[in-house]
Amino acid sequence: MSLLQDLQWRYATKKMNGESVAQEKVDYITEAARLAPTSSGLHPFKIIEITDPELKAKIQPIAFGQSQIVDASHLLIFAAYDAYTKERVDAVFTQQENERNLPQGFADAYKNQLLGSFEQQTTEQHFQHAARQAYIGFGLAIAAAAEQKVDATPMEGFNNAELDSLLDLQKLGLKSVTILALGYRDQENDWLVNLKKVRIPKENFVLNF
Amino acid sequence: MSLLQDLQWRYATKKMNGESVAQEKVDYITEAARLAPTSSGLHPFKIIEITDPELKAKIQPIAFGQSQIVDASHLLIFAAYDAYTKERVDAVFTQQENERNLPQGFADAYKNQLLGSFEQQTTEQHFQHAARQAYIGFGLAIAAAAEQKVDATPMEGFNNAELDSLLDLQKLGLKSVTILALGYRDQENDWLVNLKKVRIPKENFVLNF
Repeated sequence: MSLLQDLQWRYATKKMNGESVAQEKVDYITEAARLAPTSSGLHPFKIIEITDPELKAKIQPIAFGQSQIVDASHLLIFAAYDAYTKERVDAVFTQQENERNLPQGFADAYKNQLLGSFEQQTTEQHFQHAARQAYIGFGLAIAAAAEQKVDATPMEGFNNAELDSLLDLQKLGLKSVTILALGYRDQENDWLVNLKKVRIPKENFVLNF
Repeated sequence: MSLLQDLQWRYATKKMNGESVAQEKVDYITEAARLAPTSSGLHPFKIIEITDPELKAKIQPIAFGQSQIVDASHLLIFAAYDAYTKERVDAVFTQQENERNLPQGFADAYKNQLLGSFEQQTTEQHFQHAARQAYIGFGLAIAAAAEQKVDATPMEGFNNAELDSLLDLQKLGLKSVTILALGYRDQENDWLVNLKKVRIPKENFVLNF
């Protein structure tokens, strides 16, 4: 199947049947997010992978009781950097120089320009920028799940601050931005599964200038 | 090729050779973005597709002189809603109800809750939320280009306000967030093409809780 066929196949699963997704497939899906292009290669987000039923049960009320939180076998919580620190940026450039056999400091001019621009921004601006990068990975993970015929629910409907607190994400310098619940559709009990996919009409979406 | 193989194949093309991408392939790529899942199906972004050499030449200085702006055959400018208005939200729900043969007002309870939450937010919060949705589509367009073996450069490096002004996006209630330049790599003159793809190590990216 092509990507477009995969995207037609997928839908935001509202009711899952509790069946487990093979870890190999989950690894494939997170790998797609790891390969995401991000601004200056900073990759300012991580995925918290959760399978523990007790932890999922604690998350469910934070996500307004949605059933996918506990019926999904895996929750992928996309969490973005709360700020761009010099340490984080340095680490990315050092890794790039090492893996590409470039002299240390090769990209210092570019890196210092980047650090200078971050210095002029607020921490909130850093986070908003990092969150957007996380959404690129989120999109790729959604595509990967569809390719693997794993059902997935993209979820923004949860209390971010409460989830961050439950998972102690502040200690990691992270803030949750979105969740991808992975599992398999409950064909008989999902109200959305047989409804037509509705999207913005093409003529309203692509504007030729 | 699988999605992961496509993502390994792609890279942020730094030098393009001027060859044109077939319109059919560009349509495929924008269709992937149109099929993106978005929060409540609001799809709060559009793509401005630009092929006109004169307009690309005007954009190049706004993007700090980057060559891909003029060497790409197509620029896809992802532009997000500057705000969620009642009119925009109503239109989405009306379309959903129409296309799904549901009675008008079927989802009013949910819609009104959504409108109520938007009322409590600032316009800037609306825009930041809409921009994140645009990045889901951006990720899918990147995946689609890679599948089609079209080279692409994801670009944030431009002056958003100047681009909005040039394209008069305010009139459309839009603000530019990112650009995907489409074309074909100049294998001999692209400094990045032969460098190793570097990504955050898996063990630092996926955290098992």
